[in-house]
Formats: sequence, C-alpha cells, structure tokens
Amino acid sequence: MGRSEAVSLGDTFDRVRRRTLMLAEPLSDEDCGAQSMADASPVKWHLAHTTWFFETFVLERFEDNFAPFHEAFRFLFNSYYNGVGARHPRAQRGLLTRPPMPQVRAYRSAVDARIIALLAARPGDAELACLVNLGLQHEQQHQELILTDVLHLLAQNPMRPAYTEAAPGAAGPAPALDWLEFDGGVADIGHGGAGFCFDNELPRHRQLVAPFALASRLVTNGEFCAFIDAGGYANPSLWLAEGWDAVCERDLAHPFYWQCDGAGRWHEFTLHGLQPLDLARPVSHVSLYEADAYAHWAGARLPTEAEWELAAAGAAVEHGRLQPERAAHGGLSQMFGQLWQWTSSSYSPYPGYACAPGALGEYNGKFMLNQYVLRGSSCVTPAGHARASYRNFFPAGAQWQFTGIRLAR
Amino acid sequence: MGRSEAVSLGDTFDRVRRRTLMLAEPLSDEDCGAQSMADASPVKWHLAHTTWFFETFVLERFEDNFAPFHEAFRFLFNSYYNGVGARHPRAQRGLLTRPPMPQVRAYRSAVDARIIALLAARPGDAELACLVNLGLQHEQQHQELILTDVLHLLAQNPMRPAYTEAAPGAAGPAPALDWLEFDGGVADIGHGGAGFCFDNELPRHRQLVAPFALASRLVTNGEFCAFIDAGGYANPSLWLAEGWDAVCERDLAHPFYWQCDGAGRWHEFTLHGLQPLDLARPVSHVSLYEADAYAHWAGARLPTEAEWELAAAGAAVEHGRLQPERAAHGGLSQMFGQLWQWTSSSYSPYPGYACAPGALGEYNGKFMLNQYVLRGSSCVTPAGHARASYRNFFPAGAQWQFTGIRLAR
Amino acid sequence: MGRSEAVSLGDTFDRVRRRTLMLAEPLSDEDCGAQSMADASPVKWHLAHTTWFFETFVLERFEDNFAPFHEAFRFLFNSYYNGVGARHPRAQRGLLTRPPMPQVRAYRSAVDARIIALLAARPGDAELACLVNLGLQHEQQHQELILTDVLHLLAQNPMRPAYTEAAPGAAGPAPALDWLEFDGGVADIGHGGAGFCFDNELPRHRQLVAPFALASRLVTNGEFCAFIDAGGYANPSLWLAEGWDAVCERDLAHPFYWQCDGAGRWHEFTLHGLQPLDLARPVSHVSLYEADAYAHWAGARLPTEAEWELAAAGAAVEHGRLQPERAAHGGLSQMFGQLWQWTSSSYSPYPGYACAPGALGEYNGKFMLNQYVLRGSSCVTPAGHARASYRNFFPAGAQWQFTGIRLAR
Amino acid sequence: MGRSEAVSLGDTFDRVRRRTLMLAEPLSDEDCGAQSMADASPVKWHLAHTTWFFETFVLERFEDNFAPFHEAFRFLFNSYYNGVGARHPRAQRGLLTRPPMPQVRAYRSAVDARIIALLAARPGDAELACLVNLGLQHEQQHQELILTDVLHLLAQNPMRPAYTEAAPGAAGPAPALDWLEFDGGVADIGHGGAGFCFDNELPRHRQLVAPFALASRLVTNGEFCAFIDAGGYANPSLWLAEGWDAVCERDLAHPFYWQCDGAGRWHEFTLHGLQPLDLARPVSHVSLYEADAYAHWAGARLPTEAEWELAAAGAAVEHGRLQPERAAHGGLSQMFGQLWQWTSSSYSPYPGYACAPGALGEYNGKFMLNQYVLRGSSCVTPAGHARASYRNFFPAGAQWQFTGIRLAR
Repeated sequence: MGRSEAVSLGDTFDRVRRRTLMLAEPLSDEDCGAQSMADASPVKWHLAHTTWFFETFVLERFEDNFAPFHEAFRFLFNSYYNGVGARHPRAQRGLLTRPPMPQVRAYRSAVDARIIALLAARPGDAELACLVNLGLQHEQQHQELILTDVLHLLAQNPMRPAYTEAAPGAAGPAPALDWLEFDGGVADIGHGGAGFCFDNELPRHRQLVAPFALASRLVTNGEFCAFIDAGGYANPSLWLAEGWDAVCERDLAHPFYWQCDGAGRWHEFTLHGLQPLDLARPVSHVSLYEADAYAHWAGARLPTEAEWELAAAGAAVEHGRLQPERAAHGGLSQMFGQLWQWTSSSYSPYPGYACAPGALGEYNGKFMLNQYVLRGSSCVTPAGHARASYRNFFPAGAQWQFTGIRLAR
Repeated sequence: MGRSEAVSLGDTFDRVRRRTLMLAEPLSDEDCGAQSMADASPVKWHLAHTTWFFETFVLERFEDNFAPFHEAFRFLFNSYYNGVGARHPRAQRGLLTRPPMPQVRAYRSAVDARIIALLAARPGDAELACLVNLGLQHEQQHQELILTDVLHLLAQNPMRPAYTEAAPGAAGPAPALDWLEFDGGVADIGHGGAGFCFDNELPRHRQLVAPFALASRLVTNGEFCAFIDAGGYANPSLWLAEGWDAVCERDLAHPFYWQCDGAGRWHEFTLHGLQPLDLARPVSHVSLYEADAYAHWAGARLPTEAEWELAAAGAAVEHGRLQPERAAHGGLSQMFGQLWQWTSSSYSPYPGYACAPGALGEYNGKFMLNQYVLRGSSCVTPAGHARASYRNFFPAGAQWQFTGIRLAR
Repeated sequence: MGRSEAVSLGDTFDRVRRRTLMLAEPLSDEDCGAQSMADASPVKWHLAHTTWFFETFVLERFEDNFAPFHEAFRFLFNSYYNGVGARHPRAQRGLLTRPPMPQVRAYRSAVDARIIALLAARPGDAELACLVNLGLQHEQQHQELILTDVLHLLAQNPMRPAYTEAAPGAAGPAPALDWLEFDGGVADIGHGGAGFCFDNELPRHRQLVAPFALASRLVTNGEFCAFIDAGGYANPSLWLAEGWDAVCERDLAHPFYWQCDGAGRWHEFTLHGLQPLDLARPVSHVSLYEADAYAHWAGARLPTEAEWELAAAGAAVEHGRLQPERAAHGGLSQMFGQLWQWTSSSYSPYPGYACAPGALGEYNGKFMLNQYVLRGSSCVTPAGHARASYRNFFPAGAQWQFTGIRLAR
Repeated sequence: MGRSEAVSLGDTFDRVRRRTLMLAEPLSDEDCGAQSMADASPVKWHLAHTTWFFETFVLERFEDNFAPFHEAFRFLFNSYYNGVGARHPRAQRGLLTRPPMPQVRAYRSAVDARIIALLAARPGDAELACLVNLGLQHEQQHQELILTDVLHLLAQNPMRPAYTEAAPGAAGPAPALDWLEFDGGVADIGHGGAGFCFDNELPRHRQLVAPFALASRLVTNGEFCAFIDAGGYANPSLWLAEGWDAVCERDLAHPFYWQCDGAGRWHEFTLHGLQPLDLARPVSHVSLYEADAYAHWAGARLPTEAEWELAAAGAAVEHGRLQPERAAHGGLSQMFGQLWQWTSSSYSPYPGYACAPGALGEYNGKFMLNQYVLRGSSCVTPAGHARASYRNFFPAGAQWQFTGIRLAR
C-alpha cells in the first residue's frame, strides 16, 4: 500500500469519527447518558466504546510505550471481549455518569490524534491499515445503533420528544407488489470482491438454491394494517410457537412503535417524533415472529439468506434518511437503505468458517446461535456500509431495530 | 389396504400401548404424579395425553355419536394444540392428583377398546390407519420422554432412587476414535422410502454437501474428563456467547447428571441409580453449548444434519437398553441406540415444507425456531422408532435429554 | 409427676397421633404427595415432619444408643431448624415421591412405639413430658395446616374435587352486628394459667389499653359482597400501599376461593367442594390487606391483639367443623372455632421475651418480623388447641389460611 | 397569624428551596439524571417532585385561574398520590432525559415566584401557611434523600467518584459505651408542642413503658468488626429468619458500603469517596436485620420507639455534616445528627390516628405495614428538621439509608 492510500485512510478515519459526534449533536448530555434497556446502550457509551476499540486493538498493538488514556476505561468500555479482560455489566451502563461527556469527548480527541500520528508514522503497514479499517466499520455499526437506541430511549418518554425535525417525505401510494422470479441453481454465496467484509461473510462457497420468487418491495404499513384487521395477532395458527408465546406474554397487537390515539387512528413514533401512520411506507420495527406470521397469513414465506443474496446481486445500494420511505418505482426495490429484512436463516457459520485468533475472534463467531440473519441495510445505516453479502443478525424477538418484511415464495 | 393389514395394525396398536404401561411398572402412583420441572411431565400425564391423542384425532374423527370419556380430559391432557382449544398450564401438571392413576388406566383401556373396535369396523380405511399409526409414533415419542422425565425426577431426590436395577455392562476400554472420510456432493436429503415419517422429514430434496470427515464413535466420558481437566468450563474462548452465559449463570462445571464424591471421584446418576463414572461409555446429557465447546476444544466441530444423514445411509439401526454403552467395534458405530447427537443445524423447514391443515399441523412446524436438530436415536428410544432421516430437536441449552457428541471436521 | 400422668400423656399422644392419620384418610397417596405452592406442604411431608420432630427433639435427646429411623430423613423432614443442620429446599417437597407413603406410615409407627416405650420407662421425667407435649401441640398445628394445604391443592384442580362430602349447615340469616364496649385500662396480657402455652405468649405483662368497642361477630360474606359492589377493590384510598400493589399485581377482585359462574353468581371452593356462596357465613380466606381495606370502608378498624385478648377473657372456646358457620346468636360470638382474626398488631416479642436455647429456640422467635398476629382459632383448628392468649401469625398478604375479619373501633 | 409571620414564612421558603439547589451544585446534569435502583430517584426528579408538591397542593388549591407549568409534569413528578391521578412508573425515572435540567430549574423558579406571590397576597391565611410549611418539611425530607441517593449512585461507579472533598474529622478513639438506666412508667408519647409535626406523630397518647437501659452512644465500626470477626454473618442463630434469608440470597458479609482491599483492610465508600474505615465512627448503612443480629450477638436488643422517645426527651438536637462522626463525650450522645436508629417497633398508627382527607392523607398512613420505625436523625438530615417525636420508617432490609445501631436492654 502506497503513501497516498495511507493519507486516504486518515481522511476516512477523520470523516467517520466526526460523523459519530454529529449524530450526538441534537442531544443533551443527559440524553447521552441514559440507557433505556439492557439491550440498548447510552450514546455516551457508544462514543467511548468505539474509541476503546481503536485504543485496544490498534494503539495497544502498535504504539511503543503504550499507556491507556485512563486505566478504568479498559474495564468500563469493553463490550463483550472476554479476551481483553473483565468488563462493566451491560445493564448498568446508564449509571456511569462519570466519566462525564466532556471527558469522553477528550478521550475521543486524544485517541484520534494518536491514530492519525500512527498512520503517518507507518505509511505502508498493511496490518495497521486493516485494523483501523475494521475499527471504522465497527464505528459505523455503532452509528446505526446510536440512532436505534436513541429512538428507543425517546420512545420511553411520555413527552414524546423528537430527535430531529421531520423533512417532508414524498407523497402518494406505494407501487403494486410484484413477484420477481429467480432461477436458482448452484450459487456462489459470501463476499467475493476486493473490498472490506466481516469474517462472517466468508468463505465464499457454493450452495444449491431452488427456483424462487421474491417480492419487488417491502410490505407496507397499509398491508400490515390489513393483517391486524383480519385478526392476525389473535390467531395462533399463524404464529411460530415461540412467537405466539410472545404475543400472549407481552400482549402484542401491533408493531413496536405504533400507538392508537383516542379516535382509533394509528400513529408511529419515529426519530421525527410521533407521526400519523403513513400507509405507503414500509412497516418497520417488527420482530421475526411478526414477519413470519405476516408471511404465513399472506400465503408466502420469508426468503433464505442465500435467496436474498442471489437476488441482490444487481440491486443498487442506496442509503436512507432516518425513516423508511415508500418504494419509488416498480421492479426490485428497497433492497438497501430502508429496512433490514428478516430471513428465515439461522445465523450460522459458512462451511469452512474460521474466526480470527485472539480477542478479535469474538467479534462475530460466538454469536452464531439462536439469532437470525437480516439482509440489506436500513435508513439509519451509514452510507458506504452496505453490500449484498452483509450478514446482520438479531434474536427473533427483537423489535427495536429498523427491521421490515420482504416476502418470498 | 387389506384386512390382514388392519389386523396387523391392531396388533401393533396393542403392543405399543401395552409397552407404555410396562414402563410405569417399576413406579408407584406417587412417582407417576410428580413433575420435576416445567419442561418435564408426570408419567401419569404422559399416559393420559397419549390416550387423549387417540381420542381427539381418531375417535372424535371417526366414531358416530362420539362422546368423550370425560369432558375435563379434553382440557387437562391437551399438550400444545391451540386448534383443539384451551389447555391446562404446562407447569401445573404435577398438581393434577385427580384423576387418580386408576382412572387414567381406565381411560386408556376404554379408548383402546374403542380404537380396536374402530379398526375392526373399518378394515380398509387408509385415513384411519394413517392417523392410528401417527398416534403410535407419537406414543413412542412419549415412551422415550417417560424414561427421560423419570430420570430427571429421581435425580431431584436426595435418596437417589433407581428406576430399575442395573444389568451388567460390557467391560473394557472404548475403541480408538477414527475419522471416516465422506465425499459430499449433491445429496438427497429427507425421507424417501415407503415407511412412516413425520412431516418435518419432507420433502426429500437435494442439497450440496462439501467433503467432510465424521468421527467413528461418540465422545466418551473419559475424553470429556480431559476437557474438564484442561479447564474447559473456565475458558470463555471455547464457548458460544450464550453457552458461556449459561456456564456463568448456572455455575456449570460438568455434565448434567455427574456429581463428585468427597474423594474427588466422578459418579453419574442413571436409571440404575448412582454409578461410578464409566470412562469408556459415551458422555451423555450434555447441552449443545457443551457439545460445541468440546468440539471447539478438540479442534473439530459438530456435523450438519445433512452430513450426518449422508453418513448414516448404511449404518445399522440398533436400539439400546436404558443406558448408553461403549462402542463395540471400530468403524462407524453408535449412530443409533446410544445417544441423540447434536448437529450444528438449526431446526428449520425443508424447502417446500408444508404443514398439515388443522390442529395436527401444530405437531412439528410451529417449533421450527431457536431449536437445534439432533440425529440418530438413544438408549431409551423404542425399538423400531429410529431412522436415518429422523429429525429430533431441542433448545441448545437442554440437558435432561439423552444427548451426546459426535464430532465432524 | 406421678405414674398416672405419664400414662395419661401416652394416651393423649396416641389419640393426637392417630387423628393426624385420620385426616389423610379421604386422600389417595397421589393427593398426599403433591405440593401446590412453596408456602404449602404435601400431606405426606406433614406426616413425616411431625414424626421427625419427636425423633429429633425427644428420641435423640432421651434414648440410649439412639439411631435414626433413616439417615436421610433428618435432612428431608427438617422444616426450618438451622440448629439441626442442612435441610431439603422447601419448594421441592412435592418432588419427594420417595420415601413412599407406606414407608412414611412405618416411620410414624416406629417412632410412636419408641415414644410410648420412653414414656413408660421414664414415668416421672418432667423434661420428657414437656417435650412430648410440645411435640403434640406442634402436631396439632400441622393438623390444621394439612387441611389448609389440602384445600389449596384441590382448588388448583379444574375438576374441583371435594375433600369430603358436605354436612348440612344451619339455615337462616346472621344476627345483626352489634358493638360491644370495653373499658380498657392496664391489662395483663399473655398466658397466665397452668396449662401449656408457646413461648411467644410469655412473659405475661401489663399493657395500657384505651377504651374500645369490638364487633359482636365476624364480617359475613354478604357484608363483604357490599364492599365489592361498592367498588372496594377499585378504590386505592381504602388500601394500604402494599395492599393496593397486591390488588394491581395479582388482579385481586374477591376473596381467595370465590369464583363467579357464567350467570354472575358467587361460589366458594371449600373442603366440601364448590358451593354457592352462603351470605350469612363469615367471609374467609382474606388477607390482612383485604381485612384492613374492608374495615376502612366500613368506618372501623381491626383490633389490636391486646384488645382482642382482653375481650376474649370470658368467651367460650368452641371448635368447628371444616367450614366456618354463621353466628348462632347475638352478643360476643365466633371468637373461636370459625376463622382466625387478623389484628393490626405486628408479631413482635413481648417485653422480656427470651427464646429457648438450642434449635427449639427457632420455633417462634426468629419469625417476629413482617408478620401480623391473628387471634382466636378456626374451623380446622383441632379441639383443645385454642386459648385466649394464643398468637398465630402470617404475612399480611397470606390468603390460603382460614382467616376472617373482626372489626373494632 | 400576623403579617410578620407571613413574611417570615416567605424567607424560610426561599432559604429551604435554595438549599435544595445547592445540594445539586457539585453534580453534573448527567449525575442528576441517573437512577441507580428503583428505590432511589434521580436528583433531577427530586428537584421537580418537590416543586410539583407545591404546585399541586398549594397553587392548584389557592390560585385563581390556576394553570400548570406543564401539563405532563402532573404525571411525571407525582410520586405515589393515587388521589392526584396516574403517574410515571417509579423504576423509569432515570429515563426522563426530558425535561432537561434547565427546564426543571425554570419550573422551580416559576413555582417559587408564584408561591411567594401567594404568600404576599394572603398574609393571614392559616391554611395556606400550613400547606406551605408541609411542603417545606417535605422538601427537607427530599434534601436528605438527594444525598442518600447520590451516595448510592456514585457507589455504583467503578471510578468511585466523591460527591465532595472530605473535611478533616476529629481524631482519637470513641468513648466507652455506657448503659444509661431509665425508670419507665406511663409515658406521654407523640408530638406535644406547638411546632410542626407530621400526622404520624399524633395523637399524643399514654403508653406503659417498663424500666430499661439505653446505650450511651451508637455502635462503632470497630465494635461491628468484632461481630464480623466472630462469624456473625455465618451464624443463623443470631438472625431473624428473614434476615438470614437475605444474608444467604445476597451473600451479605459486611455493611452496605464497606469493601475490602487486596490486603484485607476495610474501606468505606462515603460522600467524600472511598476512605479507610474509621473504627471510632458509628457503623452506618446497616439494615434492621443486621442491627438486630448485632444486638443479639452483643447480648442486648434494639429499643422500642417509646423507649427511645422517652430517653430523647432531654437530648440536644444536633445536626451533622455528610458523614457520621465519633461520639464527642460520655453520657447520652449521638441521639441526633449522626445516624437514624433502628427500633424494634413496627410502623403502625398511634391509637386514634386519623389520616387527612384527600390526596394528602396518602402522605404517611398508607405505609403503616411491614416497615420499621427509625428514630433520631442523620448526618444528612437538614438542620431544623429533627425532633424527639419524629418517626422515620423503612423496610427491614433497607441498607442505603444513613442508619445505625443504638442498643437497649
């Protein structure tokens, strides 16, 4: 790798890191400190943890005479890396009023300066470039989580505050849902090109896929209303057993952020605050339970991840703007930039998968159980972070992510 | 179907139903009434529920002027069929001291007589034969559960009672573990023959399997001791994240029914009571977490269900005797009749799977989420119930089933 | 103490011990083994524990060359005596299908014979007589618990089985509720006579009691219906904070064993099975929360235990028959033999109270926190077990005991 | 009441309200927003709730054309008054990042101005004066809770931040513990003078108290160390049953804020941060369980609240400085201003107690169950808030309050 590329990585580093801080701009320090549930993290913690990642996996590896910014941060901002040592309990992240936000900002600045210095000092170091790049991809994942977790936090507040004012969306109905036919066959699955990918996208391998059809766009709020009106949440025969248990235990009757006003009108809580439900936009914040039950009711099914990847081969990778928008046209659309799409595929290693040695091997592999793969990207995924082979994953009951429904049959 | 076959089905019916009662013979009525955890059921409940199955899905369907044996039993002995109506809460089955055992025996006799009469009256009725046969397969599944649940119940008792006296086992060490190579290729997976299979074994379909190697026998207690001695339960890098959480929360340090005496010697609680651990027998009652961690430590992995099925094509289907026994010979062994073998495959529908209409459609399909496939059969599986395409399934943390470890690589 | 008294104690011993077995006669072995909640115990456990009490506190103390009937029973049937050693977890008593009922009966017989022999061998031993008598009082407490816990167990069964057939009760309305005035003053509180009492009734001491009035009889089902009809369970201002929390969390809307049939008619589950609610009988199975809220609504309050004891000085000690009955006459009635009466007094030691040394000191003293005193006796208290100074106690939320409401002001 | 008194109340109002804000000065907005457990509240919430109290019970009652500062605050900052309407769930107070701190400060200022105006406009209004005074007493209770809850929050932080720097304490050992004898007799208990008291201190009434002795000072850290060293936390015979359960379930082995460093030295977390344990200071942050077990071990007992009140008649009411200090002299000391002192008295209404009508009646009365009375005051009680008849109360297991041990016998 030549010098110009190292400079370019430094620029990218600077841009990505600054964008994370920009996401916190509409928020007060109080907003940044609160944790709304164990699965979500405070914004301040995201800001510190992404910095910890660079400090731990880059500075500590490459700096001579490395000394941590603060000894306690090693413990406080480790997310789940057993290989790095003990860590603060996940559910208590909201109690860390110290370090205060200004100190976390200082932490970011100090680590940023040291990374930039390191890149300048080791212009041709491929391992360094590789780890910095991993850190940036990691940072982008947390950029999405920041917006996802902020939405959840603001939704807990009876005052229903908005993260930011709404931009006007396009008007009009969604295009008709078409079925696009695919031939199947022996397909190459997994990442194949030269760019970055996570280890869980490898190795590229061959898989036999039967012919299938995929819906041209995501299921809309209006279509999901029809499912509700038809008694979908009251009919156990549509649901997986575990899904039906969730419906009964949590009294589920609609997607996560929907609420009914006194006059029986649906509204949805969004990053722009509470809004009347737009029937033409894709239904969002549904669990795999809900996605599967809807598909069952609609006489369809969810795609496998191989089917989805095969279909996505030629799709344009777009990115979105804080809220999913209606499909713009007929033909295959909304594969990227609107909502993550539940597949029926359990998250498991590709044949021949090997995780990295050391603590970084914990990045992906140890989660390959009882989680399901989501494909595509969402309206809060950063630009440049999506690709056809990307494997996102969450437990089947997760509702607070930006998730939607793509049908197959 | 000719008359002789109907007679033969009646004989089979009689034999299978009587065997269930025989399993209860070493037990007192008190033993039969207790429920040791929500996942296990009292023996009495198993006896009644299997009868309810015939009453509900056969008698009610075919008898003119059907009247239930007892109105309340419809509610009490429904396991999980929403389509049949409300049901008694699973965790409270141990509180049903009424109906008492004699009444449950009378229930069995009465339904048996009516089934026999029905078979005699409708000798050529293929649908009847099919449903009776399904009921018998279902009964055999519960025969295995009776022994599995009884073991769990007796294990809770500090007096460590045995279900039955031990038969002498073969002495000597286990044969060496060999690696048997398989070519892979496009394989036909799923049930293909004429005999009975469950709907989850269908449709038979083609799958691309890469070359692989399978261990010739199951992992032994002795081999698992080496994992423990090497600190296997204290090393998070060997475990899936969810498995490590279980280790920490439940303080796991050994297989489910092992215990250490004061002198540091391992014993195992079995249907024959507490016995010194036999190092040559296969390790049993391990969760998928433990199976996966062991495989990781041993530099191997668990097989996929397709690999297992491909390898099992020529294996002899044997059945066992209440306790797993050491492998008798080199070459592929212990595929059946010792312990169910965890695979890395999530339990999901085969391509094109369609569940039956009505309540019987709830038999399998609705459980295809967050469960993992086990292949083979165990030492408490009834003779005649095992086959290469059989898909057993349990959650990854389940320990009370007769489960073991077959390695692949 | 002379020989004749020892003989007499032997007769009493024999009579009390036989009565316990008689209580189990309407029950099957299955009924005797089940445990319906952690607070209740199986009948078999009661039979064994009361025997353990004699074995541990009498035989072990007095027999030369004492050997336990069964080593494991020391652990299995210890209720809460830390001083005796470890014990089986309370919530798992229902899993002890072994020892089976016949062995528990044999345990009783063997210990009984040894106690009788001991009494014969040591005719003048006052300490022995004292401990045997304590064991009999303890046995009588468990006789009440057997019926209380059986009622709870049978109530869990959707088949609503009766413990025994109902005897016809007296017809007609309850007499009017009168207020009886008492002067108060410095009263002697606590046990004063020569007969047996528990340590918590001592020492007798002086207390200043202000003038008060006591209701002539218990609150009836009919009166409690008026509280319900007036919205009593929906009005937080009537309830203690902890009581209102219980109402909300447990969705309380009526006394514990009441249920409404399809036509809106109240029924009550009793030891005689499900019966139409008799409006003239006292309301039973109410918690202190409910008793206090009712009193609040009725413009009254609950008595203190000192007030109750002062008033009970001259009351006849009657005993009842499995179900509370309507008051037979005007004037002070139903002080004994119907329902335990909640007082507003926290269960605390009398001034100068000292618990016994050793394990028997755990009998009462260690429970003197967060429990409330009930006075009188109930329809399932054995004859001869009640007295004015008796202090029963339960947590404020307990509903499964035979508890009722006596008003004061 | 004349004009001068109304002016004086306005001054007091101003002084008390300003002191609350001063308590928040060492804290960041982040510190003020976090909630460390359901029993504790964020400082911001305390600031808002005390303001809500004045708005709801004074402004709404007296202002013409009353309009709330913010409609949502009525819901958000109601603590437990069912009579005022629905309220935000207690455990979610830490999620209220909006309103932000500046808005809460503005809320305080606005309500303060309106109260001052009201006092000026209605100079002789006794009911107004009475309610404002109640609001100030309430505010002072929350001043204590602010410091108590902040200590708990900071203690959760592995960085162990101090609320404020420590002032130097007096050196030297504690004076010897003497036993002071009291005669007992018929005592007048309850508030009797002209000043303010809460309704739970009324009515003043007569009670018969037996002769007793009271320890001259509180139990010290050094004395409590001796209890620990003697195996106090491992000996069930010293503990109430519920206390022993807590020891086992929560693995209790020392007072709440103690911790042992690597060298076996005790430290205590305080508002001044982590400090070496000072053996001469009183042991603090103990539950009633621990206080009772210690007293049991020391051959003593806890006082009743009547005994305490009788003894306190002549004691000087001092106030403390953020941390309990060693006793300054022999003779009766530390009755006030160091630590609340657990009594053996259950919190129950005095004879003839009547709670106020309306929502203010919920202030005290509904909590009179399963709580125990503490007497005196603590080092974080505001000056002027303590008196001999004051009845503080907490559940027996509470550890996060400033609680200590005074022995009696």
